[in-house]
Amino acid sequence: MEDLKPGLANVPPQTPLGFLDRAATVYGDCTSIVYNNTTFTWSQTHRRCLQLASSLSSIGIHRGHVVSVVAPNIPSMYELHFAVPFAGAILNSINTRLNAATISVIILHGESKLVFVDCVSRSLVLDAISLLPAETQRPILVLITDDSVGPTSSEGFLDTYEGLVAKGDPNFQWIRPKSEWDPMILNYTSGTTSFPKGVVHCHRAAFMTALDALIDWAVPKQPVYLWTLNMFHSSGWSHPWGMAAVGGTNICVRKFNAAPVFNLIERHDVTHMCAAPVVLNMLTNSPREKPLRSPVRVLTGGSPPPAAVLQRTEAMGFVVSHVYGLTEVLGVVISCAWKPGWNLLPATERARLKARQGVRTAGLAEMDVVDPDSGKPVNHDGSTLGEVVVRGGCVMLGYLKDPEANSKCFKNGWFYTGDVGVMHPDGYLEIKDRSKDVIISGGENLSSVEVESVLYSNPAINEVAVVARPDDMWGETPCAFVSLREGLEKKPTEKEMIEYCRARLPHFMVPKTVVFKGDLPKTSNGKIEKHVLRKEAKDMGSLKHI
Amino acid sequence: MEDLKPGLANVPPQTPLGFLDRAATVYGDCTSIVYNNTTFTWSQTHRRCLQLASSLSSIGIHRGHVVSVVAPNIPSMYELHFAVPFAGAILNSINTRLNAATISVIILHGESKLVFVDCVSRSLVLDAISLLPAETQRPILVLITDDSVGPTSSEGFLDTYEGLVAKGDPNFQWIRPKSEWDPMILNYTSGTTSFPKGVVHCHRAAFMTALDALIDWAVPKQPVYLWTLNMFHSSGWSHPWGMAAVGGTNICVRKFNAAPVFNLIERHDVTHMCAAPVVLNMLTNSPREKPLRSPVRVLTGGSPPPAAVLQRTEAMGFVVSHVYGLTEVLGVVISCAWKPGWNLLPATERARLKARQGVRTAGLAEMDVVDPDSGKPVNHDGSTLGEVVVRGGCVMLGYLKDPEANSKCFKNGWFYTGDVGVMHPDGYLEIKDRSKDVIISGGENLSSVEVESVLYSNPAINEVAVVARPDDMWGETPCAFVSLREGLEKKPTEKEMIEYCRARLPHFMVPKTVVFKGDLPKTSNGKIEKHVLRKEAKDMGSLKHI
Repeated sequence: MEDLKPGLANVPPQTPLGFLDRAATVYGDCTSIVYNNTTFTWSQTHRRCLQLASSLSSIGIHRGHVVSVVAPNIPSMYELHFAVPFAGAILNSINTRLNAATISVIILHGESKLVFVDCVSRSLVLDAISLLPAETQRPILVLITDDSVGPTSSEGFLDTYEGLVAKGDPNFQWIRPKSEWDPMILNYTSGTTSFPKGVVHCHRAAFMTALDALIDWAVPKQPVYLWTLNMFHSSGWSHPWGMAAVGGTNICVRKFNAAPVFNLIERHDVTHMCAAPVVLNMLTNSPREKPLRSPVRVLTGGSPPPAAVLQRTEAMGFVVSHVYGLTEVLGVVISCAWKPGWNLLPATERARLKARQGVRTAGLAEMDVVDPDSGKPVNHDGSTLGEVVVRGGCVMLGYLKDPEANSKCFKNGWFYTGDVGVMHPDGYLEIKDRSKDVIISGGENLSSVEVESVLYSNPAINEVAVVARPDDMWGETPCAFVSLREGLEKKPTEKEMIEYCRARLPHFMVPKTVVFKGDLPKTSNGKIEKHVLRKEAKDMGSLKHI
Repeated sequence: MEDLKPGLANVPPQTPLGFLDRAATVYGDCTSIVYNNTTFTWSQTHRRCLQLASSLSSIGIHRGHVVSVVAPNIPSMYELHFAVPFAGAILNSINTRLNAATISVIILHGESKLVFVDCVSRSLVLDAISLLPAETQRPILVLITDDSVGPTSSEGFLDTYEGLVAKGDPNFQWIRPKSEWDPMILNYTSGTTSFPKGVVHCHRAAFMTALDALIDWAVPKQPVYLWTLNMFHSSGWSHPWGMAAVGGTNICVRKFNAAPVFNLIERHDVTHMCAAPVVLNMLTNSPREKPLRSPVRVLTGGSPPPAAVLQRTEAMGFVVSHVYGLTEVLGVVISCAWKPGWNLLPATERARLKARQGVRTAGLAEMDVVDPDSGKPVNHDGSTLGEVVVRGGCVMLGYLKDPEANSKCFKNGWFYTGDVGVMHPDGYLEIKDRSKDVIISGGENLSSVEVESVLYSNPAINEVAVVARPDDMWGETPCAFVSLREGLEKKPTEKEMIEYCRARLPHFMVPKTVVFKGDLPKTSNGKIEKHVLRKEAKDMGSLKHI
């Protein structure tokens, strides 16, 4: 038995790139991508990706090079998820809403050899390039034009995206990774808590997370997937590759707005989409309240969906599943697997259960909640806080050029997520906070998410974020930033809000400060930027108790 | 970038064993197994498997030991797919319909430390043990009792299956593989062409094929799976593990008969099953011709489904998908992925397309048809014969203690399947024959399957197999063994059969001999035993052309 070792026939690297070859064979005549009035088939997408990869090779992009892209969910953005690794290179998707300084630092840190630039981000990226240190080799710039946006000057660009596609060889043999552990993706963290870190993922991780997501979401063949989740956000949770594996149709959309999204859903019979809870909130708050013609399956994540949002979206015909992931694990690794019996529970109880992050997916090896000091699993009692840890094929290779960060997050054979949660007796995880968001008041650890969920149950509230404010007596106390729903007859006062919480929370968890705001600051993915609010709370100075 | 190597957090071995832990968490209260009037939940199945693994450890079964089982599709057979590898051991499922001599050779060759024996196979296995060479260490014997069969003497057995389950510790920590390449499964080939060979599969292969099959078949969560395919046949195409990944219900059945199968389908609302074309034929030939209440998805493989069988089964409400696999790849690796447009074609054309084996699954790295001499891919012209080769994570580690067989099947980085086929211009594979079943007549390679498919279109024919008969003039000529449908008014003659073929086939492909038989010899999986017929044709002696 010991003689039998893996050989050439069973070690081919796990990679999602072959999904596209297969899609061209099986789904060649079927629609791969729709964007405005442009439609591609899987044969065309396959050929275009090969042609682009061929051109990239011709202009000096080789194995291991980093190729960046600054673009929203347009067809070229989808194609680059195959075309760049087809050339052996590493795809680095950059958030279009970052400022020039941050983009410049990312390009410098990642050592990008080439940057694909969407026409709308043209001056932003040119500004970023101008900020690069003088001694730095400038990356090649390629412009992505878009008729729906209008003409754009290509000055400073080597070529256009379509120019490269047109020049390429459709019979290009794509470059297979030498090992499944070869890097394929470089995604920078959103930087809600610190400066962006470069997360490196290998082919095996992309393969595993893409297939695992299909199984966990029970995605059928040929779904119609609406790209509301940005592909530059954690590689669109691996769905660019997954959609090729099942021959889905990718409905691309440049900008998210509730009304056009509803139109796209009906026009293309959308079956699947992903959206943060705030996006779901926007959808249900939009004027149109007509229910959907047929159910749309939605993965939501990033923060737990508030009960009210869940109820409103599900009433409209969305079938919402709550999942959890991080840039560092490339997609969904924990999901609130729904039990048939739960459908019999009252709506509030269903919402409470669905707000939990859940259990590991079939593809993740292990998940636990551990005491950050001892590293031992916490009791499964639903109340002892600990840090969420995972291990499995989806975990990043590590942060680029950051051994210190790597040594902090890789310990005891686990990846430490930085999220704080509890394990319920039934084995379901519930995240209580980012470890940086925990408020320590009078020596008690206090979950800002719990305070938020109580405030969300107040019908006057549209959005809320709770952060720590320095406090003379308690060290820190909760400070709530609140945006109210539109069209209220009577706006609640700070005192009423505090009383509302006092009736529903332990005293130490009740916000001592409530700030009303028109809008809360958000990242491009719709996550509330707590670090901005934390600074604002700090700038208010310590709360005095005379 | 080069500093980033896989570490402990991302190298946990890929193994399907964790699927059962997860099923106990998510689907704990849901039905895992139904057998007659016995029902288990996933919590119970999980606990029973841990207990059994604990007992196996207690009685000296350790990492790397081989544990055999001779049993049909009963609950214990399902549990052993987890319990044996939970103890670190390698599961060896033995076909219940082999004779004592063959079972003896398998136990000796595999060096089984323990054999689980279904009560019905008791004397068969005791005979097999008695045939072991005197100097061989006897394996431990454990009896699987079954109330529905009746009392069985446990003389010669260490314990009963339920005895071991009862003695085990439900808190046993199952033994994780040290590497995903560690062996987990030892399956012997069915031996239709030669003496059984021991096929060794690792944890990674079982993980990959189980998940890949779920995606390829678009299996939803909590399917109801009827075990018509024997689990001892290529590990039930990996579905024992796959069903745990999606929390399915396993409907176990000791023996296959058409009438009880229909009852089970209706009683348990079966959604999925696997069946060789001959099994489908039996189902549609059974007296009951009422259509199914709701559609049942069927994977069929082993041989291409004849058009008539496809039409009859689909008319009854079965949704048939045609797939291809081998013991050496542990499950389905090629599947006739159906294109939506094909539904518009006439029935005969649909059947012709569905008889093709198809394209690689998303999880298989590569598949091709190559010239066996040069190793070069054949033209994709639908007519040039070549050998089917595959590479990917599902390929076996190799044949146990058989370096010669390994060196024959592993060449040029491929696994050579021994199946002969053509590649169609659209990239779909069609198998024409086992390489050993090809008939060489007057120097022409002739596919017995093509001759069979013409004969199957004759309404008088129930089953047919075509093999080579020695021929004085041509070397070999086709010889057809035919069983006729019941209740025919007039039985056709040999001459009429030959004329029927002559009207539809090139002259050199027309059978020169037709033998009518009541039943054709079959393996336990319902495959026609061509090697038996080949011997019979040989024993007839050379056909003379005076």
